[in-house]
Amino acid sequence: MFYTDGKLQYPVRVEKPNPLFARALQQAIGGVEGEIRVAMQYFFQAMGARGNPKFKDMLLNTATEELGHIEMLATAVALNLEGAPVGVKDEVAKDPVASAVLGGVNLKNILSAGMSAMPVDSDGVPFDMSHIYASGNIAADMTANVMAESTGRVLAVRLYHLTDDPGMRDMLQFLIARDTMHQNQWKAALEELGGDANVFPIPNSHPQAEEKTEFSYAYFSHMLNAETPEGRWTQGPSIDGKGEFSVVNSEPLGEKAVLGPAKPLSGAQAEQIKPV
Amino acid sequence: MFYTDGKLQYPVRVEKPNPLFARALQQAIGGVEGEIRVAMQYFFQAMGARGNPKFKDMLLNTATEELGHIEMLATAVALNLEGAPVGVKDEVAKDPVASAVLGGVNLKNILSAGMSAMPVDSDGVPFDMSHIYASGNIAADMTANVMAESTGRVLAVRLYHLTDDPGMRDMLQFLIARDTMHQNQWKAALEELGGDANVFPIPNSHPQAEEKTEFSYAYFSHMLNAETPEGRWTQGPSIDGKGEFSVVNSEPLGEKAVLGPAKPLSGAQAEQIKPV
Amino acid sequence: MFYTDGKLQYPVRVEKPNPLFARALQQAIGGVEGEIRVAMQYFFQAMGARGNPKFKDMLLNTATEELGHIEMLATAVALNLEGAPVGVKDEVAKDPVASAVLGGVNLKNILSAGMSAMPVDSDGVPFDMSHIYASGNIAADMTANVMAESTGRVLAVRLYHLTDDPGMRDMLQFLIARDTMHQNQWKAALEELGGDANVFPIPNSHPQAEEKTEFSYAYFSHMLNAETPEGRWTQGPSIDGKGEFSVVNSEPLGEKAVLGPAKPLSGAQAEQIKPV
Amino acid sequence: MFYTDGKLQYPVRVEKPNPLFARALQQAIGGVEGEIRVAMQYFFQAMGARGNPKFKDMLLNTATEELGHIEMLATAVALNLEGAPVGVKDEVAKDPVASAVLGGVNLKNILSAGMSAMPVDSDGVPFDMSHIYASGNIAADMTANVMAESTGRVLAVRLYHLTDDPGMRDMLQFLIARDTMHQNQWKAALEELGGDANVFPIPNSHPQAEEKTEFSYAYFSHMLNAETPEGRWTQGPSIDGKGEFSVVNSEPLGEKAVLGPAKPLSGAQAEQIKPV
Amino acid sequence: MFYTDGKLQYPVRVEKPNPLFARALQQAIGGVEGEIRVAMQYFFQAMGARGNPKFKDMLLNTATEELGHIEMLATAVALNLEGAPVGVKDEVAKDPVASAVLGGVNLKNILSAGMSAMPVDSDGVPFDMSHIYASGNIAADMTANVMAESTGRVLAVRLYHLTDDPGMRDMLQFLIARDTMHQNQWKAALEELGGDANVFPIPNSHPQAEEKTEFSYAYFSHMLNAETPEGRWTQGPSIDGKGEFSVVNSEPLGEKAVLGPAKPLSGAQAEQIKPV
Amino acid sequence: MFYTDGKLQYPVRVEKPNPLFARALQQAIGGVEGEIRVAMQYFFQAMGARGNPKFKDMLLNTATEELGHIEMLATAVALNLEGAPVGVKDEVAKDPVASAVLGGVNLKNILSAGMSAMPVDSDGVPFDMSHIYASGNIAADMTANVMAESTGRVLAVRLYHLTDDPGMRDMLQFLIARDTMHQNQWKAALEELGGDANVFPIPNSHPQAEEKTEFSYAYFSHMLNAETPEGRWTQGPSIDGKGEFSVVNSEPLGEKAVLGPAKPLSGAQAEQIKPV
Repeated sequence: MFYTDGKLQYPVRVEKPNPLFARALQQAIGGVEGEIRVAMQYFFQAMGARGNPKFKDMLLNTATEELGHIEMLATAVALNLEGAPVGVKDEVAKDPVASAVLGGVNLKNILSAGMSAMPVDSDGVPFDMSHIYASGNIAADMTANVMAESTGRVLAVRLYHLTDDPGMRDMLQFLIARDTMHQNQWKAALEELGGDANVFPIPNSHPQAEEKTEFSYAYFSHMLNAETPEGRWTQGPSIDGKGEFSVVNSEPLGEKAVLGPAKPLSGAQAEQIKPV
Repeated sequence: MFYTDGKLQYPVRVEKPNPLFARALQQAIGGVEGEIRVAMQYFFQAMGARGNPKFKDMLLNTATEELGHIEMLATAVALNLEGAPVGVKDEVAKDPVASAVLGGVNLKNILSAGMSAMPVDSDGVPFDMSHIYASGNIAADMTANVMAESTGRVLAVRLYHLTDDPGMRDMLQFLIARDTMHQNQWKAALEELGGDANVFPIPNSHPQAEEKTEFSYAYFSHMLNAETPEGRWTQGPSIDGKGEFSVVNSEPLGEKAVLGPAKPLSGAQAEQIKPV
Repeated sequence: MFYTDGKLQYPVRVEKPNPLFARALQQAIGGVEGEIRVAMQYFFQAMGARGNPKFKDMLLNTATEELGHIEMLATAVALNLEGAPVGVKDEVAKDPVASAVLGGVNLKNILSAGMSAMPVDSDGVPFDMSHIYASGNIAADMTANVMAESTGRVLAVRLYHLTDDPGMRDMLQFLIARDTMHQNQWKAALEELGGDANVFPIPNSHPQAEEKTEFSYAYFSHMLNAETPEGRWTQGPSIDGKGEFSVVNSEPLGEKAVLGPAKPLSGAQAEQIKPV
Repeated sequence: MFYTDGKLQYPVRVEKPNPLFARALQQAIGGVEGEIRVAMQYFFQAMGARGNPKFKDMLLNTATEELGHIEMLATAVALNLEGAPVGVKDEVAKDPVASAVLGGVNLKNILSAGMSAMPVDSDGVPFDMSHIYASGNIAADMTANVMAESTGRVLAVRLYHLTDDPGMRDMLQFLIARDTMHQNQWKAALEELGGDANVFPIPNSHPQAEEKTEFSYAYFSHMLNAETPEGRWTQGPSIDGKGEFSVVNSEPLGEKAVLGPAKPLSGAQAEQIKPV
Repeated sequence: MFYTDGKLQYPVRVEKPNPLFARALQQAIGGVEGEIRVAMQYFFQAMGARGNPKFKDMLLNTATEELGHIEMLATAVALNLEGAPVGVKDEVAKDPVASAVLGGVNLKNILSAGMSAMPVDSDGVPFDMSHIYASGNIAADMTANVMAESTGRVLAVRLYHLTDDPGMRDMLQFLIARDTMHQNQWKAALEELGGDANVFPIPNSHPQAEEKTEFSYAYFSHMLNAETPEGRWTQGPSIDGKGEFSVVNSEPLGEKAVLGPAKPLSGAQAEQIKPV
Repeated sequence: MFYTDGKLQYPVRVEKPNPLFARALQQAIGGVEGEIRVAMQYFFQAMGARGNPKFKDMLLNTATEELGHIEMLATAVALNLEGAPVGVKDEVAKDPVASAVLGGVNLKNILSAGMSAMPVDSDGVPFDMSHIYASGNIAADMTANVMAESTGRVLAVRLYHLTDDPGMRDMLQFLIARDTMHQNQWKAALEELGGDANVFPIPNSHPQAEEKTEFSYAYFSHMLNAETPEGRWTQGPSIDGKGEFSVVNSEPLGEKAVLGPAKPLSGAQAEQIKPV
């Protein structure tokens, strides 16, 4: 279960409220790279974590931290929305700055939320919990988390360059640092699980004898009339240490797929039901 | 632009059509771990790839391969649905096996698609293209791809254990092998980009001087009344080689957030508009 | 079944077409507080209403009124879109007002709908029918309707302050009045069902002997290092008249949750399958 | 910011794992009546709360409790899934019980989550955060919360009757009690805000002089050839104490809506562009 | 505005309640081929109809009829759900028929809606109003409607074959007949608009001089190593009477797309920012 | 399986990058009228095509062409985004043009995708694969395709009028031409299937003896107090040649629907459980 002290993990300060920046910040709340995603992803991964309990502890712990990041960002959105118009006077339609502000915000932040934050992205699209990746495989989960924090830090850096408000820059410098830590944290978890040679291919519990190993390390080329540029993935030992990369021109091993005629009661056209 | 020869990359064969397994296979088409996702993800990453063109080539090439995997799986779904009932006779309601089949399939595969595959997951939920992660940052994209192939291979292994049809097992052994390759391929791309010490923290173009480095390698504990278990992430050098892990009990650095009173015309209750 | 006379319930008049206001009005059509929601919610509640048939009648009747409100608002959107640009001349890119208009509208109103209304909200997000709350419990349904009309009137008031067009203000004054009525109507229905002491807790058909009554009127505090502010909910008789409010510091009654090791064929990492 | 002790608020015990009941429990996690909804709704309402700070405190506090309910239910789902098949043997297809189990579960709980809980409903549909109602109007928010807890308790009661597992019944008796409290809590908050006569119509900051008061307490009948049954809503004083209910046969006050011809460059058919 | 007489357009009678068939019927309510779709599609098309007002009248009129079809189907769902279990006894888990019923229904019909209909499809996915196609182009709209009624009648026929309940078959025979009419109705509207030669290509207001007419009637072949089978679309006059079909092997007219290097502050990797 | 040569089907050239036009172009990628939709729709129709194999070939072939259109448009979006701001300086907030640009773009194109295209529409809403209509009935599919290309060409024409960039106009003239071809192509396929009299009503495999033919060609009027305007659909032979149109005032053939009382354990209010 959970507790709160009602305080912010890090100070949130806005010197010049900017409703357009409020809109941008919404991406860090309800975007697929945002804080709802990491909080809920680590939480549900913890809920399904089997095996060494230290992973469950770590996941639950960092989920708890991320809840506080949503709180910080939601506060930042509300403070930035202070400057948005609510009572539109006649001249707004003619005043390009006011029009741009009204046209440029997520209108739902005003119309639905009364000048506060929402669990939506920077274009007003609600967060969809299908983005919570929690696979029951601890290594796949760690990999998903490296990805989440990578896109998260990219987003935070982009937001950083879209504002020159000192308070917002200060807050973002904190969040960028936490993303640095969390990228390292999930990478460290993969190292604790044995590193690339033990972890991959995920899941490592599936015996490779039960896959078609002749295709396990082949870079298939589907390019017509073109050379395949060389890369680390075209030759040399595979990253999991279990094979050797090669380049193969992909050719069909199967034939054309042919389905039989449609069944009489299946709602097809009569012509589809006759044998071809 | 694209071409096809209309043939399957690998043979698709079903000995005993099983509509329940058709439902399970839908996850590999329209689930978040499925083939539409990887095909479209690599495609859109290619569309936004800037820098060394070999990455764009590789992304476009493998996107093209994945399109053929959707084709294989959609064929497999249609062949497995051959056994589903379309004309229900009186006795079905009383026959538990027929009821279970009818109750257990995605009804849309019958009602909407006429016994063929759909871009939906195993519970009939349509694929939502917000799962296409293409960030414009090549390292974040590669990380997203490692994750996609990790969950993809986990899924393929689970499907493998849910069938004993020899044709389906053969097809899945091929797809599992391709997932092995692709996990290695995206890991290799990260190695080509310089490996962990160069790649991380993503984006590596942001000077760490502009983050709060005192928080960049600290494992914050939000656990009450509990020891923090040791892990690779609590001490030792960070994975990116730029810091040293430590454990810190998280304490609020900010205060309670207080928003001002509501604006008079903002649709709040009168009580919220008065100064507190 | 239904009939129409093709006329508007109340006149819809726009003196100065304003495409930005058209965008705002979309929230009242396809937003979660909008008219599609109430029309369809009352309709589906009517479809599942069991018990005294007067509730079904009332629900169906008011659903029918709300259909006419969608009609009014859709007309208002089309009339406001009259001013939007469709043929962009070179100067638009340089003209801030025109740019703001084009940037500020829901582009789909132009690109998809040809300058007319859509079942989307003010940020272009389509209405999702999961917002139709129809529970089969008549009191829960009435409560949902009080809520729908409360957020509906808040929205209408916000829209009212975002326009100074006399025709639009006149129309909104009508809709605000109807929201006043409907808030009262659903509250009256709850009174007819016996008022708070009979209606609550919903569902009143569940014997309270089959709940853990020691927790039924306790305000659990999860705040660390803080006093619980007093409120009507911390002491005194409960609103349903069946208990007495109290404040309790929440403490875990359960232990840490521990799941067993993963099953061998479940696609987990090998490390998760071993007993811990 | 938030903390956890890693323990469950109330014990979660499953005597006979039942994968079908796991599916039903998912509704209480990711359904619109579920715990993610209330946790996030109270959280975002707290984030936008203006006015008397005790409301923000209360919202944040109860949000924190609800996070622990997601944790309990997610644990319950994982424990109930223990009985689900992962390695399907030949006989499953013929065994109606096993088929029914496999056909009856949310397959994603197995295929995507490896036998653990997901933020989806009982039909596998992911939770969509548009269901987080946080309006910036404190009374509308309290009303939304009464509704959320009403549908929540209805759901918990239905789940209670779908299981006879003693552990699950015990857990649900706790959750039903908490829903009793929370229905009362939000009702109490409305009482603290002044009760029906002060609170309604929401928002009470809008002067009723600026609505068409002749329609503010009229029950419009849209029924053809039918008497309007009498109810509390057809006569007597309105619930907000500001008017008197009456019944009015609804008649169109407006005319047919006529849009002008289409603009030449708007992508219409040529016939639509000509003046009618 | 709208009216109702509270009666069903056609009798709805269920002799043997069948919860599995209730699930199937949901597709005809909330599926993309269902009645919410056509009702709302014709309604919104009417809202945006410009030009000859008889089209607006017709659209509004048939939208009104379709509302009554939702009503019929929602009644049919509730009547079929009568047989679903709500109080599960111990033996259910062991009884394959009861398990199959519980596993086979949309659980939300029981858990969320209390044994009544919902605006969801046969797999419990809520209807998404993005399926309301209303383009502002009257011919495109009529075409969309032919399609809606085509998939609608296919669905109704499939449902017809999945039941042998005399009442349900009777109701479906009525609905199938209405779909026959409506397919003809929208085709007739296209004929009134001048038939293929006048209507196509849609929009007919765009001068074909402003398209690359050398590609306007060419069937591009993207097939490798294969003959193009002849069809009505490979030779002969085009359907719109404005060209002649031909077959062309598609070849790239453009070059490889190359984007420039990434901008320094755009959150890319450092390697992407350097000129290639 | 598929191949690519990495080149564009038609040249994509942007003379003056325009981020607002990039937003508009997104509709042609991820809008319901866009290229992802047609590519995937034709692909899935091919996957389920039964009967004469030339239809499967044609569908797969044109799906393959459409993939190249996504490629062209994604390139066009990235090139148009070149002008968008990423590093916002202080003056942006005051500069109406820069504000309008930032406010007018889909922020996710910058924040999530790093100045490249995404599978979203012009308001940033992700494409939802439920729009892939593939019914298993070849005539319904062809009809769906006529509709897709009709709305597609309408969209392309609207985009054409929103730009005066010579490169963009050139590209759109190509795409408009392809839409002309594809409208004709699917119409030609319907002609090959026998034309209106053979194809309709879809599905033509259902014997009309099993529909209520007295309602199969009747235009039901639901209009009160109004004449029904004459149209091709009110009299004369039906388009399918199997009936004669007529006008009928719609009257209820059924009675009021009455559901029984609620079941005792179904979570209803006690009042609903008592017999009425």
